[in-house]
Amino acid sequence: MGKKNCVVAQSGGPTVAINASLAGVVNGVKNSNVFDTIYGSVHGILGILNDDLLNLSEQIPDEATLKRLKHTPSMYLGSCRYKLPTVEESPETYTQIFKLFEEKEIDTFFYIGGNDSMDTTNKLSQYAASIGSKVKVLGIPKTIDNDLCLTDHTPGFGSAAKYIATAMLEIIHDTYSYPVPSVTVIEIMGRDAGWLTSAAALARNEYNIAPHLIYLPEVAFDTAQFVADVRKQLEKHTAVIVAVSEGIRDKDGNYISATSQTVDGFGHSHLSGAGKCLENLLNAQLDIKVRSVEMSVLQRSAAHYSSATDLTEAFQLGNNAVKLAEEGATGRMVTLNRVSSDPYKVEYSSEDVSKIANEIRNVPREWINEEGNDVLGPVYEYLRPLIVGEPDIVFKNGMPTYMSIPHLKGSK
Amino acid sequence: MGKKNCVVAQSGGPTVAINASLAGVVNGVKNSNVFDTIYGSVHGILGILNDDLLNLSEQIPDEATLKRLKHTPSMYLGSCRYKLPTVEESPETYTQIFKLFEEKEIDTFFYIGGNDSMDTTNKLSQYAASIGSKVKVLGIPKTIDNDLCLTDHTPGFGSAAKYIATAMLEIIHDTYSYPVPSVTVIEIMGRDAGWLTSAAALARNEYNIAPHLIYLPEVAFDTAQFVADVRKQLEKHTAVIVAVSEGIRDKDGNYISATSQTVDGFGHSHLSGAGKCLENLLNAQLDIKVRSVEMSVLQRSAAHYSSATDLTEAFQLGNNAVKLAEEGATGRMVTLNRVSSDPYKVEYSSEDVSKIANEIRNVPREWINEEGNDVLGPVYEYLRPLIVGEPDIVFKNGMPTYMSIPHLKGSK
Repeated sequence: MGKKNCVVAQSGGPTVAINASLAGVVNGVKNSNVFDTIYGSVHGILGILNDDLLNLSEQIPDEATLKRLKHTPSMYLGSCRYKLPTVEESPETYTQIFKLFEEKEIDTFFYIGGNDSMDTTNKLSQYAASIGSKVKVLGIPKTIDNDLCLTDHTPGFGSAAKYIATAMLEIIHDTYSYPVPSVTVIEIMGRDAGWLTSAAALARNEYNIAPHLIYLPEVAFDTAQFVADVRKQLEKHTAVIVAVSEGIRDKDGNYISATSQTVDGFGHSHLSGAGKCLENLLNAQLDIKVRSVEMSVLQRSAAHYSSATDLTEAFQLGNNAVKLAEEGATGRMVTLNRVSSDPYKVEYSSEDVSKIANEIRNVPREWINEEGNDVLGPVYEYLRPLIVGEPDIVFKNGMPTYMSIPHLKGSK
Repeated sequence: MGKKNCVVAQSGGPTVAINASLAGVVNGVKNSNVFDTIYGSVHGILGILNDDLLNLSEQIPDEATLKRLKHTPSMYLGSCRYKLPTVEESPETYTQIFKLFEEKEIDTFFYIGGNDSMDTTNKLSQYAASIGSKVKVLGIPKTIDNDLCLTDHTPGFGSAAKYIATAMLEIIHDTYSYPVPSVTVIEIMGRDAGWLTSAAALARNEYNIAPHLIYLPEVAFDTAQFVADVRKQLEKHTAVIVAVSEGIRDKDGNYISATSQTVDGFGHSHLSGAGKCLENLLNAQLDIKVRSVEMSVLQRSAAHYSSATDLTEAFQLGNNAVKLAEEGATGRMVTLNRVSSDPYKVEYSSEDVSKIANEIRNVPREWINEEGNDVLGPVYEYLRPLIVGEPDIVFKNGMPTYMSIPHLKGSK
């Protein structure tokens, strides 16, 4: 009888947990009686289209390597931003993919990613069925944005939330060093959903009530109301801290950032971020120190401070995807169902990926206050367990030891 | 006989180690037979001018509180940006300060800070001598910029360097997820000295040679040469990573950032940072993805990732300052002398603060390559021991437990 191999790929935006899911798949295959070799497709589905595969059974031979991989930020296999065409648009693309599957004796394709990756997972599994192929296609969720449906949350989110909450608290400590009135606007990622920005609320504790204002993309943003909100807070607080999502939009759905053109010294026009835009807006109206801070890529790459809960779940989901494959399932995404928040308990399951692809899960409106400038109790209950636990990283000379990036051109 | 009390203050920019020095002073006083009460001056020297003192003997009563203070970022006592006038300019300021010293039976004033604070320490100790006052004035170094003279390095720097090196490595992992050509410019703090930016080199390891270019303020910055440097790197590397100091200047001493005016959507003109300026410059000349990342305040406030070596030395310097006071010294700053780098060994000493105040210590030119776009071997040897060791922080529900900020208006 022929070998049964499998291939795994990573796609979408980097997170600090996506390699933990990869480690989970590799570990699952290692303990499997069904699978022989596991291949890694370099740069998502592109590696399959370009026949650019790594033999992960060889590259990740032992427990130590697996553990190091689990804690390595960003994608070990590299990512891509590639929207798979429909069969109607490009039948040859599908023929090419399944030709490689046949050559490599691929039984299952595991795709770790967000919305677009689940769309690819859905299209490929449906195509396999349509041609009577035995190849199984399974999805493993990953996105710091936490906007996938039918799963309580997504791997990568908890670690980003932990970093955001802590960095926010540290910025607050920094800001309150000076007795001068000021406004600090902190821009947080999340183009469509406000989950990441809502994590700023976790900086509040027994001595700190900042951030004083929190704006999510789920509520239409009114710049006049925003300035009024800030003025009101300045009556009570020397330094006002504002957490804002990069994705805030006005009532017509236009990004606030898109309203803020800047022309540089070379005469070129640029879009500035939402934070910078609000900084400019406040500077134009207030006579105090205003600054904006962009958490930028650090919030999705700070593996030195990931959430142990997040990494454990990401790893387990990878493991479970292999079990699901062994059971013969296809066209499904492994999921997390919350049983309770305190004590925290989740159950692992799976859902039909066609119900997940291209859907967005937002922060419920009732979890946001009426004024739309703060989050409410349910947000805390939902978020708290996800950031618990510090990563078990091996440090060498004061630096974390991560896995190298095999496809990385220009690295030794 | 009258009581012997002392007062301690913090000044200048926040760091994650300045509270460790404060904890060291408090601990030293607690174990002292000479001192009775220790006061904390709120917002640097201003607290003394405004009679705004905290009784630290009461506020920090036990070991647990002391440990928590040691790991708390930014200033427990708050900071100020106040340049003490000369006696000629304002004799009444001095009269007022020493009047409070007399009222509170202050024997020693400890000032934890950078250049300006050492200038204040110098002026006050000289004034004390001129009026025959017995009050001692001692300086304790603190600055992430690491630009104080007569000490091997300054508390706060090692932690910032550790964060910068690690964040740099994590940003590199993130950047190399995509196979598309790109340039990422990362702006690091350091207006006058390049020490912080040089720490970006510590991101290099057995698999990574990025950042590919490093620019310090110690070398005149030539924008044309910079673009040529980047083009050259792009021939070898898919993604080019550039570390640049906020303080880079052209051959005439003008800040590069100052050449980059941006006009926002409200018609207001702003200075953009050096990183954003270089991003705009490259966007104007290259046809690939260019972005800039500002490490911003995170690099000086990320206490969740401070250097254990740094915190230990900061604490010890605070302790030693108390010993120095007991010996009757005044007008001096406690210092660190490096005995060897590997194995790392430092000795604690002190220097005449008048030789330190208002002097700047730069990265030696011979530690930078001839082209002025990278650092050399001695930088690694100098930096490596300073980032060793992870902080021993108590976490609660996934968040670090820091000390509250007593003077913080608007915090519960």
